[in-house]
Amino acid sequence: MIVTVTLNAALDVTYQVGDVDWNGVNRVQTVHRRAGGKGINVARVLAALGQEVLVTGLAGGPTGQAIEADLDTAGLPHDLTPVAQDSRTTLVVSDSPRTALFNEPGPHVTPDELDRFIRNFVAKAARAQAVVISGSLPRGVPSDFYGTLAAMSPAPVIIDADGEPLRNAPKGKPALIKPNAEELSRAVPDGTPEEGAQALRHEGAGAVVVSMGADGLLAVTADGVFRARMPYTVEGNPTGAGDSLVAGLALGLVEGTAWPETLRRAAALGAAAVAAPVAGDFDRALYAEIHPHIVIV
Amino acid sequence: MIVTVTLNAALDVTYQVGDVDWNGVNRVQTVHRRAGGKGINVARVLAALGQEVLVTGLAGGPTGQAIEADLDTAGLPHDLTPVAQDSRTTLVVSDSPRTALFNEPGPHVTPDELDRFIRNFVAKAARAQAVVISGSLPRGVPSDFYGTLAAMSPAPVIIDADGEPLRNAPKGKPALIKPNAEELSRAVPDGTPEEGAQALRHEGAGAVVVSMGADGLLAVTADGVFRARMPYTVEGNPTGAGDSLVAGLALGLVEGTAWPETLRRAAALGAAAVAAPVAGDFDRALYAEIHPHIVIV
Repeated sequence: MIVTVTLNAALDVTYQVGDVDWNGVNRVQTVHRRAGGKGINVARVLAALGQEVLVTGLAGGPTGQAIEADLDTAGLPHDLTPVAQDSRTTLVVSDSPRTALFNEPGPHVTPDELDRFIRNFVAKAARAQAVVISGSLPRGVPSDFYGTLAAMSPAPVIIDADGEPLRNAPKGKPALIKPNAEELSRAVPDGTPEEGAQALRHEGAGAVVVSMGADGLLAVTADGVFRARMPYTVEGNPTGAGDSLVAGLALGLVEGTAWPETLRRAAALGAAAVAAPVAGDFDRALYAEIHPHIVIV
Repeated sequence: MIVTVTLNAALDVTYQVGDVDWNGVNRVQTVHRRAGGKGINVARVLAALGQEVLVTGLAGGPTGQAIEADLDTAGLPHDLTPVAQDSRTTLVVSDSPRTALFNEPGPHVTPDELDRFIRNFVAKAARAQAVVISGSLPRGVPSDFYGTLAAMSPAPVIIDADGEPLRNAPKGKPALIKPNAEELSRAVPDGTPEEGAQALRHEGAGAVVVSMGADGLLAVTADGVFRARMPYTVEGNPTGAGDSLVAGLALGLVEGTAWPETLRRAAALGAAAVAAPVAGDFDRALYAEIHPHIVIV
């Protein structure tokens, strides 16, 4: 079983509107609601690949109930720790070609709620082959919390984070950290991506895989440095591509695959997610097609 | 007990956003969520005036649960008939002075769900002193449904509707119909407001009260024609003013008040709702101040 952690779970809502009047009344043509947040997207991809997953994290209020109802509909097992305040909604108003995104502030988590989550997390991680921790922290959660969770986990941990949570992640000695190039350059401002990744390894990360968009992947590991190069660029929706990539890395971790094949699969899953319209999905045909053409150097 | 009917109950959401980027990412500063729909607003005002109320109608999905949770929080008794599809959300994005409103299409109601509602409605109306039916119809509900409900109700019925539901309302012989001037002129295109109101009476309505904004009220009743004139114009948010006014009319109906006092109270409640920021609220001090100054002619 792979446990994913989504502390700031969201209800991702998309409104398709014909021609938005930003100072008037608009009829929404279609509405899509879906449980979101990076860890939940990772769990969707892993489940689609046949892996047993468990969605953990925090959820509260009517929006938290809507998130859980959608996970039930999707057949994704979950054990989200309740919080008193309402989980956040992210709203996309799409009026092609324009797209406006509205991010709610989300809940403020209390120390008691966080303690309950930790107890739940430790119990679940004890039965897991791997743990994936992704995304932003809700208010009230200390910025070193991902490192704290990694230090407590009996199972190997992958962390996909930004900002302070990324900077503090290596202290927990996670098996793997997955920043993108921009996140890495904010966390370690000086030097090349490889030097930045080495710096995170020196601080405690077992390996660092840097996603660099169309430039592929850079992996700095105990077995050496690898680069995965894409055969061609996939056009589409980059939202969720990092989550699909992280699912591929988690798969390599639990299956004990060597780095070249782990990276090949992760890079192909990331590219195949760009071709899918919704975060947490990937294009299976494109995945099968692109996978053998990923070049590892 | 006064039963209110809200077939198209909504979760009214308001986003306060600093300076909206209509083609980018926006941080929502504050979020307000509240059960809405005209019948629910009427129930709020009646409950605030000390009346026993019961909110009925249709609610479904996670949004329906959020509506019920908010009614619980507000202490408003409810018995909403479940529907399979998700209830609608109305979203206001406020970026002063601009305000964009997004209306979701709402659920499609099945004949079976409507049958269950009818059975529930008849049972509840049998114990009511009055019934208030307000607002729009969700998809799948016949346009003469308000008239049908009025015909089946043992208790006197007030209908506040627009379009086909308004045109078909008199057939059910409701005690009272409350259109605004614009709705009335669409339902009965020829003649003065008084002639339009008389036409609805001839088709079966016991009385017709026309709200005319700052021009006050016109009531065409079995006891004659009355006009309520406002002493001054109240500035503010007209959303919900009609619902507050309807609450005042329902109060007059259950208390058996003569028309002049019924209209005075209804007009004052409508004006006091304009001074309150949220639909379903009214400004008690303004209500007390303006009530004696409403002129009935």
